[in-house]
Amino acid sequence: MKKEIAIGVDIGGTSIKGAAVTSEGEVLDVFAFDVDKEKNQEEIIYQLIDEIKKYTAIHGYNKENLLGIGVGIPGTIDTVNGEVIYSNNLRWNHLPIRKMMEEGTGFEVRIINDAKAATLAENKFGAGKKHKDFVLITLGTGVGSGIITNNKLLTGNKGYGAELGHIMLRLDGEPCTCGRSGCFEAYASATALNRDTKRMMNQHQDSLMWKKLEEYGCLSAKVAFDAAKEGDKYALEVVDNYCMYLAEGLLDICNAFRPEVIVLSGGIAKAGDFLLSKVVKHCEKYHYGYDGLPKVEIKISELGYDTGKIGAAALFF
Amino acid sequence: MKKEIAIGVDIGGTSIKGAAVTSEGEVLDVFAFDVDKEKNQEEIIYQLIDEIKKYTAIHGYNKENLLGIGVGIPGTIDTVNGEVIYSNNLRWNHLPIRKMMEEGTGFEVRIINDAKAATLAENKFGAGKKHKDFVLITLGTGVGSGIITNNKLLTGNKGYGAELGHIMLRLDGEPCTCGRSGCFEAYASATALNRDTKRMMNQHQDSLMWKKLEEYGCLSAKVAFDAAKEGDKYALEVVDNYCMYLAEGLLDICNAFRPEVIVLSGGIAKAGDFLLSKVVKHCEKYHYGYDGLPKVEIKISELGYDTGKIGAAALFF
Repeated sequence: MKKEIAIGVDIGGTSIKGAAVTSEGEVLDVFAFDVDKEKNQEEIIYQLIDEIKKYTAIHGYNKENLLGIGVGIPGTIDTVNGEVIYSNNLRWNHLPIRKMMEEGTGFEVRIINDAKAATLAENKFGAGKKHKDFVLITLGTGVGSGIITNNKLLTGNKGYGAELGHIMLRLDGEPCTCGRSGCFEAYASATALNRDTKRMMNQHQDSLMWKKLEEYGCLSAKVAFDAAKEGDKYALEVVDNYCMYLAEGLLDICNAFRPEVIVLSGGIAKAGDFLLSKVVKHCEKYHYGYDGLPKVEIKISELGYDTGKIGAAALFF
Repeated sequence: MKKEIAIGVDIGGTSIKGAAVTSEGEVLDVFAFDVDKEKNQEEIIYQLIDEIKKYTAIHGYNKENLLGIGVGIPGTIDTVNGEVIYSNNLRWNHLPIRKMMEEGTGFEVRIINDAKAATLAENKFGAGKKHKDFVLITLGTGVGSGIITNNKLLTGNKGYGAELGHIMLRLDGEPCTCGRSGCFEAYASATALNRDTKRMMNQHQDSLMWKKLEEYGCLSAKVAFDAAKEGDKYALEVVDNYCMYLAEGLLDICNAFRPEVIVLSGGIAKAGDFLLSKVVKHCEKYHYGYDGLPKVEIKISELGYDTGKIGAAALFF
């Protein structure tokens, strides 16, 4: 059997998922388990090692037929030393995950930031396929990113590059988790959208958003987007502003990297065409920075649920 | 004789300079001529071709001992098709310079944006030597840039990438030549500094900057910087603000690329340590975006006058 399969693991705040993935991007049998909030970071990794041992035993994977294990993690990753430096979502800190997992499983382990994993996946098998210059933006709790330039993942010093959530959009603007004020993330994340939704709702008790909130039970991007789709003028203002901020950040990315394609992923990208059409309209109005330059196509992620696992495994393809 | 020499040409708004450059970065005999403003773009290229023919004949360069001719040009360059799409400074437009020069000289010709040429030069022979992740920023009439990531020049689609002058610093801020408002260039260029100097001078007739202006005969970065060095509080305010804007843009670059080194070049970089110490202080205060990440060293360009020629020739090394 040719060595053309790797395991991809997608670590999230609530659950950890993994699967064997072929070099064609096909996802084979999946395993998953919930993260026990009572466990510390080391205990979670030991649990992951046990799950992988069971998985490889059941499916007959060994050093002959498995290239290794790729792991995608939300947070700041030292890819050179194989450490999670810091993960806000997971509350992990200076965790030598590669060494632990290599000793525990016997397989080669490679780690990567989760947005960079998604970038590899979409670049190899999804919406960014075959593009040599490509950027992926994740619109979730924060704004993550991955950059492919000249067919290679931009890593920066020790793998810390590509934090496009922390480029400035409005100096002295909204406070950002990074310590500066006015970052792209402080305007284009789901957290930022929720903040602006709340502000608008508090000013307008008659907004349809209140009904949506009651219906869904919690504040999310759907409250503003769904009310906007139904014509609520306050929701529409929130969404239009959000799309303008997002588009301005994308224009920066066009000018800095001039990719062929930018892919939007993460929770907010689920708003699909309603979001995309507004964002593209704003970007086209400003001609992506200059006249006469090649257009940058903006698309929604194609791989969905499996992106993280495929991208982590793709570290071996 | 081994093929280890290329000619580097540095096209500027007032003069065109060239020299044979060795693969060690040594600049040999130089040629230069003033640009006749009456001539159109094609006539200037024909003059350049004649100068090169004379130069190669005198110095005995031929296809056996010369790798080719590299040309650095301020403006928007299509490196794939070898065309100058647009140059604001030169007022050139859709000029197929590579084809013209190859036909005219018989040598292979490669073209590049002038800031990218400077980046190659500093990365191979100057302040960015041996760094695999490196960014150069030119602080002149505009803000230009070149980016080395993973030892390769970031080109983007058809060579149009790396326009870091046109990432946003303050949404809805100062108008920029690119059509947006609030770009980095609209705050960190010499043009922006001159604008802010003028504003401050008009508000304060007692500022030392008026004396400096009279002394120097024209408004330049030296007016504010030299008055600030002598303690003029209004000049100091202009310079401090300028350095803050510059530093904020550099923090964006740290977060986006996480280079090992950023080099500042161009007219304003001549302010040297007075500029650098203020910029570094601001960047360190904001920890380059995050705690715990590798620091980004900020330096002043080392190659000076020859940077453009060396960088253009370096397209062949």
